[in-house]
Amino acid sequence: MIQWKLKAKTIDLSTGGAKVAVVNKEDAQDMDIHGMDRIRIAVDGKELTAVVDLTDSFVEPGTIGLFSDIYKPLGAKDGDQVVVYPVEKPVSVSYIRKKMDGEKLSANEIDQIIKDLMDEKLTDVEASAFVAAAYMRGFDMDETTALTNSIVNSGETLNIPSKRIFDKHCIGGVPGNRTTMLLVPIVASAGLVIPKTSSRAITSPAGTADTMEVLAPVEIEKEEIEKIVEKTGACIVWGGAVNLASADDKLIKLRHPLSLDPRGMLLASIMAKKKAVGATDVIIDIPIGEGAKIPNREEGLDLAEDFKKIGTRLGMNVKTILTNGDHPIGKVVGPSIEAMETLRILSGEKTSIELIEKSCDLAGVLLEMAGKADPGHGKELACSILNSGKAYEKMKEIIEMQGGNPNVKPDDLPLGQATITVTAESSGKIEHIDNKVISSIVRAAGAPKDKEAGMYIYVEEGENIKRGDKLFTVYAKTERKIDQALDVYKNNNPFRFSKVIIEEL
Amino acid sequence: MIQWKLKAKTIDLSTGGAKVAVVNKEDAQDMDIHGMDRIRIAVDGKELTAVVDLTDSFVEPGTIGLFSDIYKPLGAKDGDQVVVYPVEKPVSVSYIRKKMDGEKLSANEIDQIIKDLMDEKLTDVEASAFVAAAYMRGFDMDETTALTNSIVNSGETLNIPSKRIFDKHCIGGVPGNRTTMLLVPIVASAGLVIPKTSSRAITSPAGTADTMEVLAPVEIEKEEIEKIVEKTGACIVWGGAVNLASADDKLIKLRHPLSLDPRGMLLASIMAKKKAVGATDVIIDIPIGEGAKIPNREEGLDLAEDFKKIGTRLGMNVKTILTNGDHPIGKVVGPSIEAMETLRILSGEKTSIELIEKSCDLAGVLLEMAGKADPGHGKELACSILNSGKAYEKMKEIIEMQGGNPNVKPDDLPLGQATITVTAESSGKIEHIDNKVISSIVRAAGAPKDKEAGMYIYVEEGENIKRGDKLFTVYAKTERKIDQALDVYKNNNPFRFSKVIIEEL
Repeated sequence: MIQWKLKAKTIDLSTGGAKVAVVNKEDAQDMDIHGMDRIRIAVDGKELTAVVDLTDSFVEPGTIGLFSDIYKPLGAKDGDQVVVYPVEKPVSVSYIRKKMDGEKLSANEIDQIIKDLMDEKLTDVEASAFVAAAYMRGFDMDETTALTNSIVNSGETLNIPSKRIFDKHCIGGVPGNRTTMLLVPIVASAGLVIPKTSSRAITSPAGTADTMEVLAPVEIEKEEIEKIVEKTGACIVWGGAVNLASADDKLIKLRHPLSLDPRGMLLASIMAKKKAVGATDVIIDIPIGEGAKIPNREEGLDLAEDFKKIGTRLGMNVKTILTNGDHPIGKVVGPSIEAMETLRILSGEKTSIELIEKSCDLAGVLLEMAGKADPGHGKELACSILNSGKAYEKMKEIIEMQGGNPNVKPDDLPLGQATITVTAESSGKIEHIDNKVISSIVRAAGAPKDKEAGMYIYVEEGENIKRGDKLFTVYAKTERKIDQALDVYKNNNPFRFSKVIIEEL
Repeated sequence: MIQWKLKAKTIDLSTGGAKVAVVNKEDAQDMDIHGMDRIRIAVDGKELTAVVDLTDSFVEPGTIGLFSDIYKPLGAKDGDQVVVYPVEKPVSVSYIRKKMDGEKLSANEIDQIIKDLMDEKLTDVEASAFVAAAYMRGFDMDETTALTNSIVNSGETLNIPSKRIFDKHCIGGVPGNRTTMLLVPIVASAGLVIPKTSSRAITSPAGTADTMEVLAPVEIEKEEIEKIVEKTGACIVWGGAVNLASADDKLIKLRHPLSLDPRGMLLASIMAKKKAVGATDVIIDIPIGEGAKIPNREEGLDLAEDFKKIGTRLGMNVKTILTNGDHPIGKVVGPSIEAMETLRILSGEKTSIELIEKSCDLAGVLLEMAGKADPGHGKELACSILNSGKAYEKMKEIIEMQGGNPNVKPDDLPLGQATITVTAESSGKIEHIDNKVISSIVRAAGAPKDKEAGMYIYVEEGENIKRGDKLFTVYAKTERKIDQALDVYKNNNPFRFSKVIIEEL
């Protein structure tokens, strides 16, 4: 094997991810290596693999620039002689090429790609090419099942000693859609085991984990989750704190730059999270409509079909439900204000009929799957559990087990002191409320990081309003955040309704 | 628009390409930006676009790390307050998505992608996705023509006042294939105008430009090339020194990490270089066989058909020729030793029948296209021009015009002082000589950077040899390079022939 000896130039900076070595273009030509190629760097018996970044002048010929991610583990000092030799690309790169060529991948090949991805052996361009190939060539059910299993194997799994484990997933994209925090206590109080892991907000102003965190800690270790679920039958925790299906986070990041959502990866991503908690019975909520992730009923039905198929392959009983996702659910958006509404509904207030109905619909399906209700009577049972106060008692139990205060009252929860209320400039009918703009306004107000940031929406789609009627109130930590939220509102009106002006009260 | 104020942390390092700003993950969440997103950074009225790199700890929340590619043009100092706001992806990203979705791109859309690529507006992942999409979805003739035109427009073009301009291209991959340096003087001495731009070696031990550079400078400016061609009818220069078809270099780099050679891009790449010199009549040499870029006759014919089609679209008369590309052409490999052979052949020596035959075949086609010879008689004319010494006279003229010494003799040219000759261990027949291994050995000996590094091959495919017969001699600048070349030979025998040992003479 050909080796080169170069002088180390240490750079006291971390690249924070891939190990990058800076090589002069002249040396690179000698060594027959190109930008993004892998090289092996050795000093005194220690060695590691790095990715080549080329430079005209940053390091001189005969010198190799090593960031702290490289020189520290190698124990190399500035001026040390290091030995460099090219290394082959990992074999998974050839599998990515194979998929690009339109061929089907075997379970082993997919597993190798996921392993190399987890071991940081693939460059950004190679890993992105895997996502691009999945998008353009598609994955069949065999490949999707294999990917799901590989993602499950990339992380830990929950061990819960129950024959049947229930779970629920929502495709997302609808603000205020806080069904999980009603559904989980409803079905758990009927005796179903439901270890719910939820996500934090990525592009929305509040994920379920962000909202639950207002009531109790959600970053809980695996063993502790297992204990909580064994005692209460349920939990509502942040999935990111447990190392479940960890390859999924990496795949999600790779999908971002080109907003690619390959069907096979979407299915595998969701199902891997269900499988990692040991789910046997799953209800999947597919919101459809303008502004939701799935634009129409046809695509919703198609996706639902795929979920059932992959469920069968994985030995899971999967039901799906198509819901209206073209406007915010409920009247409130933001972590703390949504937590307030949840407590109010659990304690018997009918603050949002739509949210209650939807939660009972979904809970009803799980109750029917479990045999707790006859077909067609699940929702009825769910509503009666909610009305009886049993769901609230179960929620208090969950809050307490996770380390929160079970006796917290809605009014105890924090809400931003800086507020502004926007009113209608003229009379008319609200034709549409845009999910994405509502999300942007509440994010600009500080959510999800500022839990107390949020919005109360006074109006509904189809409602006739008069000039001066309140449209919404924004809550934020500071006046500056209120200004930021207003800026977004001024540039993007979420209400399809003519002539609305801003009037500060 | 939402803006954030952050404190600059200047980093005295160049990233050498894309402008990267380092943002703390907490700030990124607040700002709703992700790694690889674009942001606009403004200081005192100056602003520019950067790509976000996320960090946990390298910069603190409220601080933004700026490499010298950013803080210098902005005139920002460490600790300065900078204003940051998100910017939309360039519209060409949506065109890349469109191609990924399998749709056809318009000429304008392709042009926008190439413009944004040249303006550094696309990230590596986005630009690679364009190549991946071209590979997986394919380009039709409209798209290939549009891409060719966009690549031509991305750089300069030669202005040569001749009604017909001739050119030649070889798909490459065959060591010792130095036909250009014979063909150009042959056809130019028959009166054809042929402004030949050649490439330097990328993966081979010597490109035509590297070899010509042994005889004369090849890095010549556009206006000077135009003058030379106007006077002598020809030149042999390095294409990289003139800014012709410059988008092509970027596309080639993007194709490297996954070794993608999308047909449409290959065609556009080659044809754009021809169009940029104003070519009206082109002969394309397609070597086929084991170790060549095109593995078999069928694929060669298919590619030839595509070249003719795209030629028609571009208003170019294109002829193709399939040649045997499974072994090195001629007996010598390396810049200086190939230049020696070229001079010997031009002066009448028959050192390599195969190289002479092939060059006259190709030159003959051009002579027929130009009407200088009747169909079927071009090769005859080419050979007679070569034998008459006229081609040598023309070559001397070209060498002189480019600033070289026209009277240089083959033995004046440098050849490595360190040498080793390898002989056969046993008798037998040479079944195959592997192009790629020969290239690797000569590169390990120092070519193309060390012009004097090279190889003389004593044997031919099909030849019966006896134990002790010389196989090849390697020439290099230093003994160390000889050792490197021998290392490659020991690990990868280029001769398909049993029991060969190394014996140093």
